[in-house]
Amino acid sequence: MNQHPSDESMLSNQMADCIQDCLNSHAVCLDTAMSLLQKGKEYADPVRILLDCSELCATNAHFMMRNSPVWGSVSQACAQVCTHCAEVCDEIGENDCANACRASATSCEQMARLIP
Amino acid sequence: MNQHPSDESMLSNQMADCIQDCLNSHAVCLDTAMSLLQKGKEYADPVRILLDCSELCATNAHFMMRNSPVWGSVSQACAQVCTHCAEVCDEIGENDCANACRASATSCEQMARLIP
Amino acid sequence: MNQHPSDESMLSNQMADCIQDCLNSHAVCLDTAMSLLQKGKEYADPVRILLDCSELCATNAHFMMRNSPVWGSVSQACAQVCTHCAEVCDEIGENDCANACRASATSCEQMARLIP
Amino acid sequence: MNQHPSDESMLSNQMADCIQDCLNSHAVCLDTAMSLLQKGKEYADPVRILLDCSELCATNAHFMMRNSPVWGSVSQACAQVCTHCAEVCDEIGENDCANACRASATSCEQMARLIP
Repeated sequence: MNQHPSDESMLSNQMADCIQDCLNSHAVCLDTAMSLLQKGKEYADPVRILLDCSELCATNAHFMMRNSPVWGSVSQACAQVCTHCAEVCDEIGENDCANACRASATSCEQMARLIP
Repeated sequence: MNQHPSDESMLSNQMADCIQDCLNSHAVCLDTAMSLLQKGKEYADPVRILLDCSELCATNAHFMMRNSPVWGSVSQACAQVCTHCAEVCDEIGENDCANACRASATSCEQMARLIP
Repeated sequence: MNQHPSDESMLSNQMADCIQDCLNSHAVCLDTAMSLLQKGKEYADPVRILLDCSELCATNAHFMMRNSPVWGSVSQACAQVCTHCAEVCDEIGENDCANACRASATSCEQMARLIP
Repeated sequence: MNQHPSDESMLSNQMADCIQDCLNSHAVCLDTAMSLLQKGKEYADPVRILLDCSELCATNAHFMMRNSPVWGSVSQACAQVCTHCAEVCDEIGENDCANACRASATSCEQMARLIP
């Protein structure tokens, strides 16, 4: 009798969590970018990185949803972009967005470490 | 008198070429995936990787079109996925698609090498 | 004292529900498309419409997330595509996906009716 | 001997042109949105509609690239959004972008008229 979850089910649970984290920061980054548009041109650079992060989080979630054989390199890129975006959000006091990005950065790093 | 193109203009020319190569393989991969759907379930894995490659090529092009400060890690991931997709296309005789993927893999690698 | 929700807050609640319904059918359609790939070429047409529906649901959600002034026409198109996709899913016994598409079709129709 | 192009080949030529027009305004709208970010918060609304138009043009092109059976309603929505975006671009003197949007609006209207 197997009392431990199999490696495969642990992977797929972790992947499901990572998909959720990425879809969440996809949405939060887009929302934050839109609200910063009203604040003026000194937010041009944050808006740009938020749009980058939003799109890559969606793309990364789609790779995992398609059960892609090559999700590893995208997860690594996504972790880096999310980490950078979280730092930018910290600087401008967008704490909720920073937390969402940090959560998906952590998830993506964990996933990237599982690459065989 | 400056007889040499500046580093900055060389970068932006190279980036414009990379955007074109990525948008081209984005389109060719989607087209190839659709035609493989008609061929049966033994093409399920190629269709999956073609959809992956198509989406990441678009995302990577968008990062460069937005002049993103963090395009480097996405370009690296895109080069890896394009290379893998080109190999899969070789195996199934999709030569045009293999060439399109190889061209964008090469462009993306060159771009990724320029990361400061 | 205002005991009734304002028209505006009703609209934004309804929009939040519609975004959720669209993001849900975006995910379920992509997942269903991927599982049908394994079933053979008689599913080529359903896979195609599922990819269509998945992409348009995401685009429609993004219009609402950006608080677009022109979401109405996209919501109408999304309602039509979701309805068609639900019918295709019915025919092939993909009941969960049919339900997800029908839910977002209903939400999108309600939203489209609110166009000033 | 058939000296006239068949209806089907006329349709597919027209569709190929429409795909090109949509991909072009997808790129031009994204580029214009990014440059407006530097100009200040009075451009928040144009940026928003440019992001809308850019995304819907890509989605519409993908529907045609997938040879979707339901491209008609998306083409209609795309024509409306492109027309609106062209008007906004006119108002702020973004003439190249206005022209790109008008070209894809015209293409999309022609396509939408072909719906059986």
